[in-house]
Amino acid sequence: MPAARQNLMGSRIVQRIDALAAISESPAALTRICFSPEHRRAADLILRWMEEAGLTARMDEIGNVIGRYEGDAPGLPCLMIGSHFDTVRDAGKWDGPLGVLTSIECAAEVARRGLRLPFALEVVAFADEEGVRFSSTLLGSRAVAGTFDYGALEAVDADGLTMREAMEAFGLKPGAIRKAARKRGEILAYTELHIEQGPALEVENVPVGVVTAISGASRFIIELEGMTGHAGTVPMHLRRDALAGAAECIAAVERLCGGHPGLVGTVGQIAAEPGATNVVAGRVRFTLDIRAAEDERRKDAVSAVIDAVDEIASRRRLKARITKTHDNRTAVCAPWLRDQLGAAIAESGHRVLGLPSGAGHDGMAMIDIADIAMLFVRCRGGISHHPDEHVSAEDVEAAARVLMRFIENFRPQAEARS
Amino acid sequence: MPAARQNLMGSRIVQRIDALAAISESPAALTRICFSPEHRRAADLILRWMEEAGLTARMDEIGNVIGRYEGDAPGLPCLMIGSHFDTVRDAGKWDGPLGVLTSIECAAEVARRGLRLPFALEVVAFADEEGVRFSSTLLGSRAVAGTFDYGALEAVDADGLTMREAMEAFGLKPGAIRKAARKRGEILAYTELHIEQGPALEVENVPVGVVTAISGASRFIIELEGMTGHAGTVPMHLRRDALAGAAECIAAVERLCGGHPGLVGTVGQIAAEPGATNVVAGRVRFTLDIRAAEDERRKDAVSAVIDAVDEIASRRRLKARITKTHDNRTAVCAPWLRDQLGAAIAESGHRVLGLPSGAGHDGMAMIDIADIAMLFVRCRGGISHHPDEHVSAEDVEAAARVLMRFIENFRPQAEARS
Repeated sequence: MPAARQNLMGSRIVQRIDALAAISESPAALTRICFSPEHRRAADLILRWMEEAGLTARMDEIGNVIGRYEGDAPGLPCLMIGSHFDTVRDAGKWDGPLGVLTSIECAAEVARRGLRLPFALEVVAFADEEGVRFSSTLLGSRAVAGTFDYGALEAVDADGLTMREAMEAFGLKPGAIRKAARKRGEILAYTELHIEQGPALEVENVPVGVVTAISGASRFIIELEGMTGHAGTVPMHLRRDALAGAAECIAAVERLCGGHPGLVGTVGQIAAEPGATNVVAGRVRFTLDIRAAEDERRKDAVSAVIDAVDEIASRRRLKARITKTHDNRTAVCAPWLRDQLGAAIAESGHRVLGLPSGAGHDGMAMIDIADIAMLFVRCRGGISHHPDEHVSAEDVEAAARVLMRFIENFRPQAEARS
Repeated sequence: MPAARQNLMGSRIVQRIDALAAISESPAALTRICFSPEHRRAADLILRWMEEAGLTARMDEIGNVIGRYEGDAPGLPCLMIGSHFDTVRDAGKWDGPLGVLTSIECAAEVARRGLRLPFALEVVAFADEEGVRFSSTLLGSRAVAGTFDYGALEAVDADGLTMREAMEAFGLKPGAIRKAARKRGEILAYTELHIEQGPALEVENVPVGVVTAISGASRFIIELEGMTGHAGTVPMHLRRDALAGAAECIAAVERLCGGHPGLVGTVGQIAAEPGATNVVAGRVRFTLDIRAAEDERRKDAVSAVIDAVDEIASRRRLKARITKTHDNRTAVCAPWLRDQLGAAIAESGHRVLGLPSGAGHDGMAMIDIADIAMLFVRCRGGISHHPDEHVSAEDVEAAARVLMRFIENFRPQAEARS
């Protein structure tokens, strides 16, 4: 493909990123949640772009937008590429849309060149990955994978509307969600292009990377209860200071989760009570988030941290209460897909770097129905979920080129093995 | 004095503690702030009790209530005893009133026995020690010591009323505050009986203790700024985690302020931003409160902690901002008064224990006009500024007995020296 056309692709992706970012709940901060008027407007725009690209496009029963380009025979299993088009609140404009729009652009290039591949190509724009509205992530991809949790239909949003009501108001029938599910074998692979949302590619100075696995995550709320006391009158050795105990726990998280690539441990939220300058804190509540590319590594780290918290609490005469709030396993990217992504990167002239994804993605749901892979794109400063989220035009082009090469050279697993 | 009478004193003090505690802004939680209807009602009750005790009682120009019992000649310099009768919000009933009521009871006993001592006895009930209403402590004792800060008259309360307006509504003339100031030489000593508000006496199993000094205090707000990041995607070694940095600072405070009797360091308030489970904190703000019975010790600890914070911040690539919010020097209790209090304790059959006061008291203001001393009374679990604040009836009696013996045997400094 001549460089001029590639640059044209890149600049069109960036233009469309901006066009999609203009569709927001408020002009001041980009927010696009599922089953909202913005969902509808964005879906209509994506449908039009897919049709202009030469795809047969539709909205499915959960609000995903899917465009299909047939292979060298009608009805062949597909390579599915894409990402999601919902956002967090006050979001950046790249998280999700970059994958959707680059995938449309590559499909358009396939169609423009009249390529008929030995597989169908489908571009998917998932309706809800972030889970902002109903605190329930991966709605779109779970519906496609056939693992949608129907209990979530009764979840309520901030306005007290249930998901069921929101879907009906949007024009979707909750009873029909199961029709969005695809059959195993229809999808040869799900490959998602997404911004890294971390600094690793920037540090390594490469525009793209191959995701090795989407890290499993375990989350906890930890409460330490000691004894409130006067900051002037309770001697240090008689204190049961819950905040000093929490500080030691945070240090333990940092120590026990450090030094292993792909393992991360975070305390991001903390509250001390009563919370006054001159009062020793009697109660502290903090969160713990531990992720790793390998489930065993994560479980070992969780055990080590919990043991440390128990030891610290016991030594300090604090009462510890540890509540698990979330737990999901690692979704390993298929080696045969990683190899093909790696080849596309190498052939595009870049160093091939493998890295885990610490953030969750639709592949975590899609892995239940197909092998998955992800191509990460460098983002400035590793910043994401923030208006400052940014990808350079050069990196958009580089990523589009790699994805295009991956599609052109794609061989389903059976062939890849032979 | 026969034990029967002493027990009568103790039980009357406890009854009056309850009577005074019934005078509150709301029945649900004891709150009595200056220049309020409760201030007036409590002052009237205290005036009546003082008069019944045989004292000549008056309210002074800042709202303090003062009762005087002449010595063996009229107009002699006085031994001033007492405490304050305002409270914090949702207070315990002993902090302040115990000293006021025990002092009245002892003065009543002196009068009942017709003792004419070689000095006058004055009982003071200070109007505002806690400083709840106008965020300005020691209003009553500062007025008596002649160090009232007239700028505080323009401070506003939660309803937007200035102190000047509140005083006028109460019936006091702000312009007359200077008349509340006593001349040096009029007060031989100021001796306050007060609950310990800490656990030291309970741990040592003694009902009372002699305060060595009212600790100076330095307070700071410390802000650490790092880099917000995704808890899943930013590798541990690339983080600039402000909360992990704060945790290390808290550990340093505990370490650097531990092991020295009378030195305490507290981080009681903390806030992390953005404060989400899955986000590395980019900014943390916490308070620091350091107190010691010796100013040099406190200053050394402050320097050591600030150095540690700077080192931690620099090593972690965090920006540290340290703002001093409060600083006051130690008020040393006069050795000659401590000796007399110690003698009274020993003669009452208790072990004499010296201990610093980590909390502030009216003596911090009174030291500008007279030598000061304090007798601490054991309180259950060291709990104070809380409805659970409690002193046993036995300890009230023991404290009253010690204070009575101190008064009877009191010799002014000149005589004490000889």
